[in-house]
Amino acid sequence: MTETTAMQCTPAISKMIDWQQAMKTTKQTIGFVPTMGFLHEGHAELIKEAKKNNDRVAVSIFVNPAQFGPGEDFEEYPRNLDADIRLASQAGADIVFCPGVEDMYPTDGGIRIVPGPLADRLCGASRPGHFDGVLKVVLKLVNIVQPDTVYFGMKDAQQLAIIETFFRDYNCPAVIVRVPTVREMDGLAKSSRNVNLSVQERNEAPVIYEALQQAELLVKEGGSLEGITQFVENTLREKTSGAVDYVSILTYPQLEEPTAVSQDLIIACAVQFSKARLIDNIIFKREG
Amino acid sequence: MTETTAMQCTPAISKMIDWQQAMKTTKQTIGFVPTMGFLHEGHAELIKEAKKNNDRVAVSIFVNPAQFGPGEDFEEYPRNLDADIRLASQAGADIVFCPGVEDMYPTDGGIRIVPGPLADRLCGASRPGHFDGVLKVVLKLVNIVQPDTVYFGMKDAQQLAIIETFFRDYNCPAVIVRVPTVREMDGLAKSSRNVNLSVQERNEAPVIYEALQQAELLVKEGGSLEGITQFVENTLREKTSGAVDYVSILTYPQLEEPTAVSQDLIIACAVQFSKARLIDNIIFKREG
Repeated sequence: MTETTAMQCTPAISKMIDWQQAMKTTKQTIGFVPTMGFLHEGHAELIKEAKKNNDRVAVSIFVNPAQFGPGEDFEEYPRNLDADIRLASQAGADIVFCPGVEDMYPTDGGIRIVPGPLADRLCGASRPGHFDGVLKVVLKLVNIVQPDTVYFGMKDAQQLAIIETFFRDYNCPAVIVRVPTVREMDGLAKSSRNVNLSVQERNEAPVIYEALQQAELLVKEGGSLEGITQFVENTLREKTSGAVDYVSILTYPQLEEPTAVSQDLIIACAVQFSKARLIDNIIFKREG
Repeated sequence: MTETTAMQCTPAISKMIDWQQAMKTTKQTIGFVPTMGFLHEGHAELIKEAKKNNDRVAVSIFVNPAQFGPGEDFEEYPRNLDADIRLASQAGADIVFCPGVEDMYPTDGGIRIVPGPLADRLCGASRPGHFDGVLKVVLKLVNIVQPDTVYFGMKDAQQLAIIETFFRDYNCPAVIVRVPTVREMDGLAKSSRNVNLSVQERNEAPVIYEALQQAELLVKEGGSLEGITQFVENTLREKTSGAVDYVSILTYPQLEEPTAVSQDLIIACAVQFSKARLIDNIIFKREG
Protein backbone atom coordinates (compact mmCIF):
# COMPACT_ATOMS: atom_id res chain seq x y z
CA MET A 1 0.00 0.00 0.00
CA THR A 2 1.25 3.46 -0.86
CA GLU A 3 0.33 6.31 1.42
CA THR A 4 -0.28 9.74 0.01
CA THR A 5 2.22 12.25 1.36
CA ALA A 6 3.24 15.71 0.25
CA MET A 7 5.51 15.68 -2.80
CA GLN A 8 9.14 16.22 -1.97
CA CYS A 9 11.54 18.34 -3.98
CA THR A 10 15.31 18.28 -3.69
CA PRO A 11 18.34 19.45 -5.65
CA ALA A 12 20.62 17.15 -3.59
CA ILE A 13 21.88 13.90 -5.07
CA SER A 14 22.34 12.49 -1.56
CA LYS A 15 18.67 13.19 -0.69
CA MET A 16 17.53 11.61 -3.95
CA ILE A 17 19.58 8.49 -3.14
CA ASP A 18 18.19 8.40 0.42
CA TRP A 19 14.68 8.52 -1.01
CA GLN A 20 15.15 5.69 -3.49
CA GLN A 21 16.85 3.55 -0.87
CA ALA A 22 13.93 4.11 1.48
CA MET A 23 11.58 2.99 -1.32
CA LYS A 24 13.64 -0.15 -1.92
CA THR A 25 13.76 -0.94 1.79
CA THR A 26 9.97 -0.82 1.89
CA LYS A 27 9.73 -2.76 -1.39
CA GLN A 28 8.02 0.03 -3.31
CA THR A 29 8.64 0.18 -7.05
CA ILE A 30 9.94 3.40 -8.60
CA GLY A 31 8.84 4.83 -11.93
CA PHE A 32 11.15 7.55 -13.22
CA VAL A 33 10.45 10.42 -15.61
CA PRO A 34 13.63 12.31 -16.59
CA THR A 35 12.84 15.78 -17.98
CA MET A 36 14.44 19.12 -18.80
CA GLY A 37 11.57 20.90 -17.05
CA PHE A 38 9.07 23.47 -18.37
CA LEU A 39 6.63 20.63 -18.06
CA HIS A 40 3.57 20.30 -20.29
CA GLU A 41 0.84 17.75 -20.84
CA GLY A 42 3.29 15.44 -22.56
CA HIS A 43 5.30 15.21 -19.35
CA ALA A 44 2.09 14.91 -17.33
CA GLU A 45 1.22 11.88 -19.46
CA LEU A 46 4.61 10.31 -18.67
CA ILE A 47 4.11 10.93 -14.95
CA LYS A 48 0.56 9.53 -15.00
CA GLU A 49 1.73 6.46 -16.88
CA ALA A 50 4.50 6.00 -14.30
CA LYS A 51 2.05 6.44 -11.42
CA LYS A 52 -0.35 3.87 -12.86
CA ASN A 53 2.33 1.17 -12.92
CA ASN A 54 4.58 1.93 -9.93
CA ASP A 55 4.23 2.55 -6.21
CA ARG A 56 6.22 5.77 -6.42
CA VAL A 57 7.20 8.25 -9.11
CA ALA A 58 10.37 10.33 -9.30
CA VAL A 59 10.64 13.20 -11.79
CA SER A 60 13.95 14.85 -12.56
CA ILE A 61 14.19 18.41 -13.85
CA PHE A 62 17.58 19.26 -15.25
CA VAL A 63 18.41 21.30 -18.33
CA ASN A 64 21.46 19.26 -19.24
CA PRO A 65 24.23 21.45 -20.69
CA ALA A 66 26.10 18.37 -21.94
CA GLN A 67 23.46 17.78 -24.63
CA PHE A 68 23.51 21.32 -26.03
CA GLY A 69 26.13 22.23 -28.63
CA PRO A 70 27.80 25.62 -29.12
CA GLY A 71 25.23 28.04 -30.58
CA GLU A 72 22.29 25.89 -29.48
CA ASP A 73 19.53 27.11 -27.19
CA PHE A 74 20.82 26.15 -23.72
CA GLU A 75 20.41 29.72 -22.46
CA GLU A 76 17.02 30.27 -24.09
CA TYR A 77 15.67 26.90 -23.08
CA PRO A 78 12.56 27.81 -21.05
CA ARG A 79 12.61 27.24 -17.29
CA ASN A 80 9.93 27.58 -14.59
CA LEU A 81 10.60 25.40 -11.57
CA ASP A 82 7.61 26.57 -9.52
CA ALA A 83 5.16 25.72 -12.26
CA ASP A 84 6.96 22.42 -12.87
CA ILE A 85 6.63 21.43 -9.22
CA ARG A 86 2.89 22.15 -9.34
CA LEU A 87 2.37 20.15 -12.52
CA ALA A 88 4.48 17.23 -11.33
CA SER A 89 2.61 17.10 -8.03
CA GLN A 90 -0.80 17.24 -9.75
CA ALA A 91 0.19 14.50 -12.18
CA GLY A 92 1.16 12.23 -9.29
CA ALA A 93 4.91 12.61 -8.71
CA ASP A 94 6.22 11.72 -5.25
CA ILE A 95 9.56 13.48 -5.59
CA VAL A 96 11.06 16.08 -7.90
CA PHE A 97 14.84 15.91 -8.24
CA CYS A 98 16.12 19.26 -9.54
CA PRO A 99 19.91 19.33 -9.28
CA GLY A 100 22.05 22.25 -10.41
CA VAL A 101 24.75 21.92 -13.06
CA GLU A 102 27.40 21.96 -10.32
CA ASP A 103 25.64 19.06 -8.56
CA MET A 104 25.55 16.95 -11.71
CA TYR A 105 28.95 17.85 -13.16
CA PRO A 106 31.34 18.65 -10.29
CA THR A 107 34.17 16.72 -11.99
CA ASP A 108 35.02 15.65 -15.53
CA GLY A 109 37.66 13.04 -16.18
CA GLY A 110 36.84 13.14 -19.89
CA ILE A 111 35.11 9.74 -20.19
CA ARG A 112 32.32 9.86 -22.79
CA ILE A 113 29.59 7.51 -23.91
CA VAL A 114 29.65 7.65 -27.70
CA PRO A 115 26.47 6.49 -29.45
CA GLY A 116 28.07 5.43 -32.73
CA PRO A 117 26.12 4.83 -35.97
CA LEU A 118 22.67 5.38 -34.38
CA ALA A 119 23.63 9.04 -33.96
CA ASP A 120 24.93 9.51 -37.52
CA ARG A 121 21.51 10.44 -38.92
CA LEU A 122 18.42 12.52 -38.07
CA CYS A 123 19.14 14.95 -35.20
CA GLY A 124 22.53 13.36 -34.52
CA ALA A 125 23.84 14.50 -37.90
CA SER A 126 23.24 18.18 -37.18
CA ARG A 127 23.84 18.05 -33.41
CA PRO A 128 27.29 16.46 -32.96
CA GLY A 129 27.83 15.33 -29.37
CA HIS A 130 24.15 15.79 -28.48
CA PHE A 131 23.48 12.11 -27.84
CA ASP A 132 26.79 11.72 -25.95
CA GLY A 133 25.37 14.27 -23.53
CA VAL A 134 21.99 12.54 -23.43
CA LEU A 135 23.56 9.15 -22.63
CA LYS A 136 25.78 10.73 -19.98
CA VAL A 137 22.93 12.36 -18.12
CA VAL A 138 20.62 9.37 -18.47
CA LEU A 139 23.20 6.96 -17.03
CA LYS A 140 23.95 9.40 -14.20
CA LEU A 141 20.25 9.85 -13.44
CA VAL A 142 19.39 6.15 -13.43
CA ASN A 143 22.42 5.46 -11.24
CA ILE A 144 21.13 8.08 -8.79
CA VAL A 145 17.40 7.24 -8.93
CA GLN A 146 17.73 3.46 -9.53
CA PRO A 147 14.24 3.15 -10.94
CA ASP A 148 12.41 -0.03 -11.87
CA THR A 149 10.98 1.63 -14.96
CA VAL A 150 11.87 4.77 -16.93
CA TYR A 151 9.36 6.64 -19.11
CA PHE A 152 10.32 8.41 -22.33
CA GLY A 153 8.18 10.26 -24.85
CA MET A 154 8.17 9.10 -28.46
CA LYS A 155 8.56 12.62 -29.82
CA ASP A 156 12.28 12.23 -29.11
CA ALA A 157 12.34 9.03 -31.12
CA GLN A 158 16.04 8.94 -31.92
CA GLN A 159 16.90 9.60 -28.27
CA LEU A 160 14.58 6.74 -27.31
CA ALA A 161 16.15 4.36 -29.85
CA ILE A 162 19.66 5.18 -28.62
CA ILE A 163 18.74 4.84 -24.94
CA GLU A 164 16.93 1.54 -25.58
CA THR A 165 20.02 0.25 -27.39
CA PHE A 166 22.29 1.43 -24.56
CA PHE A 167 20.14 -0.18 -21.88
CA ARG A 168 19.99 -3.44 -23.87
CA ASP A 169 23.71 -3.65 -24.72
CA TYR A 170 24.89 -2.53 -21.26
CA ASN A 171 22.43 -4.58 -19.15
CA CYS A 172 20.98 -1.49 -17.49
CA PRO A 173 18.45 -2.91 -15.06
CA ALA A 174 15.54 -0.50 -15.58
CA VAL A 175 12.72 -1.24 -18.03
CA ILE A 176 12.07 1.46 -20.63
CA VAL A 177 8.50 2.42 -21.52
CA ARG A 178 7.70 4.34 -24.72
CA VAL A 179 4.89 6.86 -24.25
CA PRO A 180 3.10 8.27 -27.33
CA THR A 181 3.55 11.92 -28.21
CA VAL A 182 0.92 14.26 -26.79
CA ARG A 183 -0.30 16.90 -29.25
CA GLU A 184 -2.06 20.25 -29.23
CA MET A 185 -5.62 20.39 -30.65
CA ASP A 186 -4.18 21.34 -34.05
CA GLY A 187 -1.75 18.41 -34.07
CA LEU A 188 1.47 20.19 -33.11
CA ALA A 189 3.55 17.95 -30.86
CA LYS A 190 3.72 19.37 -27.35
CA SER A 191 7.22 20.66 -26.64
CA SER A 192 8.78 22.94 -24.06
CA ARG A 193 10.33 24.77 -27.01
CA ASN A 194 6.94 25.74 -28.51
CA VAL A 195 6.90 28.88 -26.32
CA ASN A 196 9.92 30.11 -28.25
CA LEU A 197 7.91 30.21 -31.51
CA SER A 198 6.71 33.58 -32.84
CA VAL A 199 2.95 33.93 -33.40
CA GLN A 200 3.42 33.38 -37.12
CA GLU A 201 5.65 30.35 -36.57
CA ARG A 202 3.14 28.88 -34.12
CA ASN A 203 0.45 29.22 -36.80
CA GLU A 204 2.63 27.47 -39.37
CA ALA A 205 3.89 24.69 -37.09
CA PRO A 206 0.89 22.30 -37.35
CA VAL A 207 1.94 21.73 -40.98
CA ILE A 208 4.72 19.52 -39.65
CA TYR A 209 2.41 16.84 -38.31
CA GLU A 210 -0.01 17.21 -41.24
CA ALA A 211 2.80 16.55 -43.69
CA LEU A 212 4.01 13.54 -41.68
CA GLN A 213 0.48 12.11 -41.60
CA GLN A 214 0.14 12.52 -45.38
CA ALA A 215 3.51 10.85 -45.79
CA GLU A 216 2.41 7.89 -43.66
CA LEU A 217 -0.61 7.40 -45.92
CA LEU A 218 1.51 7.64 -49.08
CA VAL A 219 3.99 5.08 -47.72
CA LYS A 220 1.16 2.70 -46.87
CA GLU A 221 -0.16 3.15 -50.44
CA GLY A 222 3.22 1.93 -51.66
CA GLY A 223 4.75 5.20 -52.86
CA SER A 224 8.49 5.65 -53.31
CA LEU A 225 10.14 6.60 -50.02
CA GLU A 226 12.43 9.05 -51.80
CA GLY A 227 9.51 10.82 -53.47
CA ILE A 228 7.55 10.96 -50.24
CA THR A 229 10.51 12.39 -48.34
CA GLN A 230 10.83 15.05 -51.02
CA PHE A 231 7.09 15.79 -50.82
CA VAL A 232 7.31 16.40 -47.05
CA GLU A 233 10.39 18.55 -47.47
CA ASN A 234 8.70 20.65 -50.17
CA THR A 235 5.55 21.02 -48.05
CA LEU A 236 7.54 22.23 -45.05
CA ARG A 237 9.53 24.66 -47.18
CA GLU A 238 6.43 26.09 -48.82
CA LYS A 239 4.16 26.29 -45.81
CA THR A 240 6.53 27.33 -43.02
CA SER A 241 9.15 30.04 -42.62
CA GLY A 242 11.46 27.55 -40.88
CA ALA A 243 14.55 25.92 -42.36
CA VAL A 244 14.11 22.20 -42.92
CA ASP A 245 16.96 20.39 -41.18
CA TYR A 246 15.98 16.91 -42.36
CA VAL A 247 13.11 14.73 -43.46
CA SER A 248 13.88 11.04 -43.29
CA ILE A 249 12.19 7.65 -43.50
CA LEU A 250 14.12 4.90 -41.69
CA THR A 251 13.49 1.63 -39.88
CA TYR A 252 12.70 1.95 -36.20
CA PRO A 253 14.40 1.56 -33.79
CA GLN A 254 17.45 0.53 -35.90
CA LEU A 255 17.41 3.82 -37.86
CA GLU A 256 18.58 2.12 -41.05
CA GLU A 257 17.48 2.40 -44.67
CA PRO A 258 14.29 0.35 -45.06
CA THR A 259 14.61 -2.88 -47.04
CA ALA A 260 11.77 -5.28 -46.17
CA VAL A 261 8.17 -4.01 -46.16
CA SER A 262 7.56 -5.75 -42.80
CA GLN A 263 9.84 -3.40 -40.86
CA ASP A 264 8.56 -0.74 -38.46
CA LEU A 265 9.29 2.65 -39.98
CA ILE A 266 9.79 6.14 -38.67
CA ILE A 267 9.15 9.22 -40.72
CA ALA A 268 10.86 12.04 -38.89
CA CYS A 269 11.73 15.66 -39.49
CA ALA A 270 13.30 18.68 -37.85
CA VAL A 271 12.50 22.29 -38.68
CA GLN A 272 14.58 25.18 -37.40
CA PHE A 273 12.47 28.25 -36.64
CA SER A 274 13.97 31.54 -35.49
CA LYS A 275 14.35 30.56 -31.82
CA ALA A 276 13.11 26.99 -31.70
CA ARG A 277 14.11 23.81 -33.47
CA LEU A 278 11.07 21.53 -33.61
CA ILE A 279 11.12 17.79 -34.23
CA ASP A 280 8.30 15.38 -34.84
CA ASN A 281 7.77 11.87 -36.14
CA ILE A 282 5.33 9.07 -36.80
CA ILE A 283 6.32 5.45 -36.16
CA PHE A 284 4.19 2.96 -38.07
CA LYS A 285 4.01 -0.34 -39.93
CA ARG A 286 4.15 -0.06 -43.73
CA GLU A 287 1.66 -2.89 -44.12
CA GLY A 288 -1.71 -3.46 -42.50
CA MET B 1 23.72 -13.40 9.88
CA THR B 2 25.04 -15.20 6.84
CA GLU B 3 24.61 -18.92 6.58
CA THR B 4 27.28 -21.00 4.93
CA THR B 5 25.93 -22.76 1.86
CA ALA B 6 27.61 -24.45 -1.09
CA MET B 7 29.03 -22.01 -3.60
CA GLN B 8 26.88 -21.58 -6.68
CA CYS B 9 28.18 -21.29 -10.21
CA THR B 10 26.21 -20.04 -13.20
CA PRO B 11 26.84 -18.80 -16.72
CA ALA B 12 23.30 -17.33 -16.89
CA ILE B 13 22.77 -13.59 -16.51
CA SER B 14 19.20 -14.22 -15.35
CA LYS B 15 20.43 -16.54 -12.54
CA MET B 16 23.03 -13.99 -11.48
CA ILE B 17 20.33 -11.32 -11.31
CA ASP B 18 18.02 -13.63 -9.34
CA TRP B 19 20.84 -14.22 -6.84
CA GLN B 20 21.64 -10.54 -6.27
CA GLN B 21 17.96 -9.71 -5.95
CA ALA B 22 17.58 -12.44 -3.33
CA MET B 23 20.53 -10.92 -1.44
CA LYS B 24 18.96 -7.48 -1.57
CA THR B 25 15.60 -8.81 -0.42
CA THR B 26 17.30 -10.31 2.62
CA LYS B 27 19.40 -7.15 3.15
CA GLN B 28 22.73 -8.88 2.60
CA THR B 29 25.54 -6.77 1.19
CA ILE B 30 27.37 -7.94 -1.94
CA GLY B 31 31.10 -7.65 -2.54
CA PHE B 32 32.06 -8.22 -6.17
CA VAL B 33 35.35 -9.38 -7.67
CA PRO B 34 35.36 -9.17 -11.49
CA THR B 35 38.10 -11.35 -13.02
CA MET B 36 39.22 -12.89 -16.28
CA GLY B 37 39.75 -16.22 -14.51
CA PHE B 38 42.87 -18.38 -14.17
CA LEU B 39 42.71 -17.24 -10.57
CA HIS B 40 45.81 -16.90 -8.42
CA GLU B 41 46.60 -15.61 -4.93
CA GLY B 42 46.06 -12.04 -6.08
CA HIS B 43 42.45 -12.89 -6.87
CA ALA B 44 42.16 -14.88 -3.63
CA GLU B 45 43.21 -11.73 -1.78
CA LEU B 46 40.47 -9.74 -3.53
CA ILE B 47 37.88 -12.39 -2.62
CA LYS B 48 39.04 -12.56 1.01
CA GLU B 49 38.94 -8.78 1.29
CA ALA B 50 35.42 -8.82 -0.15
CA LYS B 51 34.35 -11.58 2.25
CA LYS B 52 35.69 -9.69 5.24
CA ASN B 53 33.55 -6.64 4.49
CA ASN B 54 30.36 -8.03 2.93
CA ASP B 55 27.72 -10.61 3.70
CA ARG B 56 28.12 -12.25 0.30
CA VAL B 57 30.76 -12.35 -2.42
CA ALA B 58 30.21 -12.71 -6.15
CA VAL B 59 33.14 -13.48 -8.47
CA SER B 60 32.83 -13.15 -12.22
CA ILE B 61 35.05 -15.10 -14.59
CA PHE B 62 34.94 -13.78 -18.13
CA VAL B 63 37.80 -13.41 -20.59
CA ASN B 64 36.44 -10.27 -22.19
CA PRO B 65 37.12 -10.18 -25.93
CA ALA B 66 36.20 -6.47 -26.07
CA GLN B 67 39.39 -5.53 -24.22
CA PHE B 68 41.77 -7.47 -26.46
CA GLY B 69 43.01 -5.83 -29.67
CA PRO B 70 43.87 -7.56 -32.94
CA GLY B 71 47.09 -9.56 -32.49
CA GLU B 72 46.77 -9.54 -28.69
CA ASP B 73 46.60 -12.69 -26.59
CA PHE B 74 42.84 -13.35 -26.35
CA GLU B 75 43.26 -16.90 -27.66
CA GLU B 76 46.34 -17.65 -25.55
CA TYR B 77 44.92 -16.10 -22.41
CA PRO B 78 45.02 -19.00 -19.91
CA ARG B 79 41.73 -20.58 -18.81
CA ASN B 80 40.87 -23.24 -16.22
CA LEU B 81 37.32 -22.96 -14.92
CA ASP B 82 37.43 -26.03 -12.66
CA ALA B 83 40.49 -24.76 -10.80
CA ASP B 84 38.97 -21.26 -10.64
CA ILE B 85 35.80 -22.59 -9.04
CA ARG B 86 37.85 -24.42 -6.39
CA LEU B 87 39.98 -21.37 -5.60
CA ALA B 88 36.99 -19.01 -5.51
CA SER B 89 35.13 -21.34 -3.17
CA GLN B 90 38.12 -21.77 -0.84
CA ALA B 91 38.68 -18.00 -0.73
CA GLY B 92 35.06 -17.47 0.33
CA ALA B 93 33.02 -16.73 -2.79
CA ASP B 94 29.29 -17.44 -2.62
CA ILE B 95 28.68 -17.41 -6.36
CA VAL B 96 30.80 -17.60 -9.48
CA PHE B 97 29.29 -15.96 -12.55
CA CYS B 98 30.97 -17.36 -15.67
CA PRO B 99 29.04 -16.20 -18.75
CA GLY B 100 30.02 -17.05 -22.30
CA VAL B 101 30.84 -14.43 -24.93
CA GLU B 102 27.41 -14.97 -26.51
CA ASP B 103 25.74 -14.33 -23.12
CA MET B 104 27.60 -11.06 -22.62
CA TYR B 105 27.56 -9.76 -26.19
CA PRO B 106 24.42 -11.05 -27.94
CA THR B 107 23.84 -7.66 -29.58
CA ASP B 108 25.94 -4.64 -30.49
CA GLY B 109 24.34 -1.34 -31.37
CA GLY B 110 27.77 0.29 -31.58
CA ILE B 111 27.59 2.41 -28.42
CA ARG B 112 31.02 2.72 -26.79
CA ILE B 113 32.34 4.15 -23.55
CA VAL B 114 35.43 6.09 -24.52
CA PRO B 115 37.88 6.77 -21.69
CA GLY B 116 39.46 9.91 -23.14
CA PRO B 117 42.77 11.40 -21.95
CA LEU B 118 43.26 8.90 -19.09
CA ALA B 119 43.78 6.22 -21.73
CA ASP B 120 46.26 8.23 -23.82
CA ARG B 121 49.29 7.03 -21.86
CA LEU B 122 50.76 3.88 -20.26
CA CYS B 123 48.95 0.75 -21.51
CA GLY B 124 46.29 2.81 -23.27
CA ALA B 125 48.85 4.23 -25.70
CA SER B 126 49.85 0.80 -27.02
CA ARG B 127 46.47 -0.88 -26.61
CA PRO B 128 43.95 1.33 -28.48
CA GLY B 129 40.37 0.46 -27.52
CA HIS B 130 41.50 -1.69 -24.58
CA PHE B 131 39.96 0.54 -21.92
CA ASP B 132 36.77 1.01 -23.98
CA GLY B 133 36.37 -2.75 -23.65
CA VAL B 134 37.20 -2.68 -19.94
CA LEU B 135 34.63 0.04 -19.23
CA LYS B 136 32.02 -1.78 -21.30
CA VAL B 137 32.39 -5.05 -19.44
CA VAL B 138 32.66 -3.41 -16.02
CA LEU B 139 29.45 -1.41 -16.53
CA LYS B 140 27.67 -4.53 -17.82
CA LEU B 141 28.90 -6.60 -14.87
CA VAL B 142 27.97 -4.08 -12.19
CA ASN B 143 24.56 -3.64 -13.81
CA ILE B 144 24.07 -7.41 -13.61
CA VAL B 145 25.59 -8.02 -10.15
CA GLN B 146 24.58 -4.71 -8.52
CA PRO B 147 27.22 -4.95 -5.82
CA ASP B 148 27.68 -2.68 -2.83
CA THR B 149 31.45 -2.81 -3.24
CA VAL B 150 33.77 -3.85 -6.08
CA TYR B 151 37.35 -4.99 -5.53
CA PHE B 152 40.17 -4.28 -7.98
CA GLY B 153 43.86 -5.12 -7.76
CA MET B 154 46.38 -2.31 -7.95
CA LYS B 155 48.56 -4.12 -10.47
CA ASP B 156 46.14 -2.89 -13.12
CA ALA B 157 46.61 0.66 -11.90
CA GLN B 158 45.54 2.48 -15.05
CA GLN B 159 42.42 0.34 -15.28
CA LEU B 160 41.67 1.18 -11.66
CA ALA B 161 42.17 4.92 -12.23
CA ILE B 162 39.86 4.88 -15.26
CA ILE B 163 37.17 2.85 -13.50
CA GLU B 164 37.34 5.07 -10.41
CA THR B 165 36.94 8.13 -12.63
CA PHE B 166 34.03 6.54 -14.50
CA PHE B 167 32.24 5.56 -11.28
CA ARG B 168 32.77 9.06 -9.86
CA ASP B 169 31.69 11.01 -12.96
CA TYR B 170 28.73 8.72 -13.76
CA ASN B 171 27.40 8.28 -10.18
CA CYS B 172 27.82 4.51 -10.27
CA PRO B 173 26.49 3.40 -6.92
CA ALA B 174 29.11 0.79 -5.95
CA VAL B 175 32.12 1.66 -3.81
CA ILE B 176 35.50 0.75 -5.30
CA VAL B 177 38.20 -0.77 -3.09
CA ARG B 178 41.85 -0.83 -4.18
CA VAL B 179 43.64 -4.01 -3.14
CA PRO B 180 47.47 -4.09 -3.13
CA THR B 181 49.29 -6.27 -5.65
CA VAL B 182 50.16 -9.75 -4.43
CA ARG B 183 53.67 -10.90 -5.39
CA GLU B 184 55.65 -14.09 -5.76
CA MET B 185 58.46 -14.70 -3.23
CA ASP B 186 60.92 -13.10 -5.67
CA GLY B 187 58.80 -9.98 -6.09
CA LEU B 188 57.18 -10.71 -9.45
CA ALA B 189 53.59 -9.45 -9.45
CA LYS B 190 51.15 -12.36 -9.58
CA SER B 191 49.44 -12.48 -12.96
CA SER B 192 47.45 -15.03 -14.89
CA ARG B 193 49.79 -14.30 -17.79
CA ASN B 194 52.91 -15.46 -15.87
CA VAL B 195 52.27 -19.05 -17.04
CA ASN B 196 52.90 -17.88 -20.58
CA LEU B 197 56.52 -16.91 -19.74
CA SER B 198 59.33 -19.22 -20.84
CA VAL B 199 61.62 -20.54 -18.10
CA GLN B 200 64.24 -17.95 -19.00
CA GLU B 201 61.70 -15.13 -19.08
CA ARG B 202 60.32 -16.22 -15.69
CA ASN B 203 63.85 -16.01 -14.29
CA GLU B 204 64.33 -12.52 -15.68
CA ALA B 205 60.90 -11.15 -14.71
CA PRO B 206 61.65 -10.26 -11.04
CA VAL B 207 63.93 -7.53 -12.40
CA ILE B 208 60.78 -5.54 -13.20
CA TYR B 209 59.78 -5.03 -9.57
CA GLU B 210 63.40 -4.62 -8.45
CA ALA B 211 63.89 -1.79 -10.93
CA LEU B 212 60.63 -0.13 -9.86
CA GLN B 213 61.66 -0.33 -6.18
CA GLN B 214 65.04 1.23 -6.96
CA ALA B 215 63.24 3.95 -8.90
CA GLU B 216 60.95 4.68 -5.95
CA LEU B 217 64.00 5.19 -3.72
CA LEU B 218 65.66 7.44 -6.27
CA VAL B 219 62.53 9.57 -6.62
CA LYS B 220 62.27 9.93 -2.85
CA GLU B 221 65.93 11.02 -2.81
CA GLY B 222 64.96 13.83 -5.17
CA GLY B 223 66.41 12.50 -8.42
CA SER B 224 65.25 13.73 -11.83
CA LEU B 225 62.15 11.85 -12.95
CA GLU B 226 63.43 11.76 -16.51
CA GLY B 227 66.75 10.26 -15.46
CA ILE B 228 65.07 7.70 -13.23
CA THR B 229 62.68 6.66 -16.00
CA GLN B 230 65.68 6.17 -18.26
CA PHE B 231 67.46 4.15 -15.58
CA VAL B 232 64.51 1.74 -15.26
CA GLU B 233 64.22 1.42 -19.03
CA ASN B 234 67.95 0.65 -19.36
CA THR B 235 67.80 -1.89 -16.53
CA LEU B 236 64.85 -3.72 -18.13
CA ARG B 237 66.56 -3.71 -21.54
CA GLU B 238 69.82 -5.04 -20.13
CA LYS B 239 68.47 -7.63 -17.72
CA THR B 240 65.50 -9.07 -19.59
CA SER B 241 64.93 -10.41 -23.08
CA GLY B 242 61.58 -8.59 -23.26
CA ALA B 243 60.79 -5.47 -25.24
CA VAL B 244 60.12 -2.47 -23.01
CA ASP B 245 56.76 -0.98 -23.98
CA TYR B 246 56.93 1.96 -21.58
CA VAL B 247 58.35 3.19 -18.30
CA SER B 248 56.54 6.19 -16.93
CA ILE B 249 56.27 8.28 -13.77
CA LEU B 250 52.94 10.11 -13.46
CA THR B 251 50.58 11.43 -10.80
CA TYR B 252 48.04 8.92 -9.52
CA PRO B 253 45.17 8.54 -10.15
CA GLN B 254 45.14 11.54 -12.55
CA LEU B 255 47.93 10.06 -14.72
CA GLU B 256 49.39 13.49 -15.45
CA GLU B 257 52.94 14.81 -15.51
CA PRO B 258 53.98 15.45 -11.90
CA THR B 259 54.31 19.11 -10.87
CA ALA B 260 54.04 19.46 -7.08
CA VAL B 261 56.11 17.17 -4.81
CA SER B 262 53.04 16.50 -2.66
CA GLN B 263 51.27 14.48 -5.34
CA ASP B 264 50.84 10.70 -5.19
CA LEU B 265 52.94 9.19 -7.94
CA ILE B 266 52.89 6.00 -9.94
CA ILE B 267 55.94 4.50 -11.53
CA ALA B 268 54.69 1.98 -14.02
CA CYS B 269 56.07 -0.15 -16.80
CA ALA B 270 55.10 -2.78 -19.35
CA VAL B 271 57.42 -5.39 -20.82
CA GLN B 272 56.44 -7.53 -23.77
CA PHE B 273 57.90 -11.04 -23.53
CA SER B 274 57.47 -13.63 -26.27
CA LYS B 275 53.96 -14.73 -25.23
CA ALA B 276 53.13 -12.50 -22.28
CA ARG B 277 52.99 -8.77 -21.78
CA LEU B 278 53.69 -8.03 -18.10
CA ILE B 279 52.83 -4.82 -16.29
CA ASP B 280 53.75 -3.66 -12.83
CA ASN B 281 53.81 -0.46 -10.81
CA ILE B 282 54.43 1.15 -7.46
CA ILE B 283 52.19 3.93 -6.18
CA PHE B 284 53.80 6.09 -3.54
CA LYS B 285 54.25 9.54 -2.04
CA ARG B 286 57.36 11.41 -3.14
CA GLU B 287 57.83 12.88 0.33
CA GLY B 288 57.85 11.21 3.72
